[in-house]
Amino acid sequence: MFFYPSYLLCLCLGILCVVFVSYWNAVWRGGFAWDGSGKQFNWHPVLMVTGLVVLYGNAAVVYRVPLTWGQNKTPWKLLHAGILLLALILSIVGLCAVFGNHNAQHIPNVYSLHSWIGICTVALFASQWVGGFAAFLLPCSPVEFRKLIKPTHVWMGGIILVLSIISCISGINEKLFFALKGNGNGSQPYKDLPPEALFANFLGVLIVAFGLVVLYILSNQKWQRPEPTHDGEGYRPLQCDVES
Amino acid sequence: MFFYPSYLLCLCLGILCVVFVSYWNAVWRGGFAWDGSGKQFNWHPVLMVTGLVVLYGNAAVVYRVPLTWGQNKTPWKLLHAGILLLALILSIVGLCAVFGNHNAQHIPNVYSLHSWIGICTVALFASQWVGGFAAFLLPCSPVEFRKLIKPTHVWMGGIILVLSIISCISGINEKLFFALKGNGNGSQPYKDLPPEALFANFLGVLIVAFGLVVLYILSNQKWQRPEPTHDGEGYRPLQCDVES
Repeated sequence: MFFYPSYLLCLCLGILCVVFVSYWNAVWRGGFAWDGSGKQFNWHPVLMVTGLVVLYGNAAVVYRVPLTWGQNKTPWKLLHAGILLLALILSIVGLCAVFGNHNAQHIPNVYSLHSWIGICTVALFASQWVGGFAAFLLPCSPVEFRKLIKPTHVWMGGIILVLSIISCISGINEKLFFALKGNGNGSQPYKDLPPEALFANFLGVLIVAFGLVVLYILSNQKWQRPEPTHDGEGYRPLQCDVES
Repeated sequence: MFFYPSYLLCLCLGILCVVFVSYWNAVWRGGFAWDGSGKQFNWHPVLMVTGLVVLYGNAAVVYRVPLTWGQNKTPWKLLHAGILLLALILSIVGLCAVFGNHNAQHIPNVYSLHSWIGICTVALFASQWVGGFAAFLLPCSPVEFRKLIKPTHVWMGGIILVLSIISCISGINEKLFFALKGNGNGSQPYKDLPPEALFANFLGVLIVAFGLVVLYILSNQKWQRPEPTHDGEGYRPLQCDVES
């Protein structure tokens, strides 16, 4: 399969994920605020899906675009690190949204399995970003150290995306059981699959599909950025590119 | 890292997952029956974790054991297919347990995001098993076809494990919110993290840890079964082994 159809699919699914999670929370969940109410909670799914899944996934595949292979790698490394930093900031603000809402409503924090996996995912992501910055962006980092750490960095990158998707799916599932209880106000319970439930379930399917496309792109060795040779012969497709 | 410590960790985590999910449902959820009641539902998590995660993951890494590399591959292919068939049967019985319970209690089927992802996972697993049987076990299957389908079979194998873990984590999270409502009988709600909640959350962590160890073993190219050469020179470590 060619790279660009997969990449286009990745971009389209990513945009759809952001549109769906925003529309769900803006229209069905009552919109956004930062006042400790349920409207503050609504930032949580939007920021986690946008940061931890969509921006994260797009940053992960940025080296795979063949058009960039003939160019200097540094701007693409800065773009990779920059998008991931934005993703990390959005994720942390997304966690603050739910902590603030829970504290204001006197709801305990970090008790569900969803929250355990989610917190671990963000912590791993933060460690990965700091480790990646120290290893691949600091000029004093030796090439041998980069060579040593690169396979772990790449593997951990994929694993953090898997953990992000686990967190998002368990979170959307949990939220729908909480929100769609069908007790009054003409609202229907989750089990009757009202339009909101169908819409949010479909958001979950989109998130899984986006994650699978990103993992597919990452797993294809032919799409890895070739490492430049040191004798000026051009590019060699290697599994690990440890160039600065 | 050496193979055998990883493999031992995989075996130990797998056993712990089965022990934890069985103990949770036997002791805290009231045990097992096949009478349409909640005790029938209790088979669902036990069979899905045992089949779709633990047996599945162990079957996936069976070719990676270096001790088997010098031996004829056929018995190991039969073991791989046999464990996966057992895993598939347990998964289907696990689905029957929840459908039977829902039908007896007049609860709609397949409405939650957990159930959507779970059903798709089992359907993909069944297709993968049938496709794998046709491609790699039927003697009439041509070598060229095996060569063509092998990378997809391996990639899909890992993806199905990821989907299984997503299904299990969202399912355990959902079950704990359903079961631990804290309404009477001295039971505590999930948000107070009673012993059952801690225990089942820890089961979720064990499942994720097991999945990560299996994915780690699968991703290490040095641990792939070497393909025999046709000139009697021994074994070559290749990414794809298309030998029958």
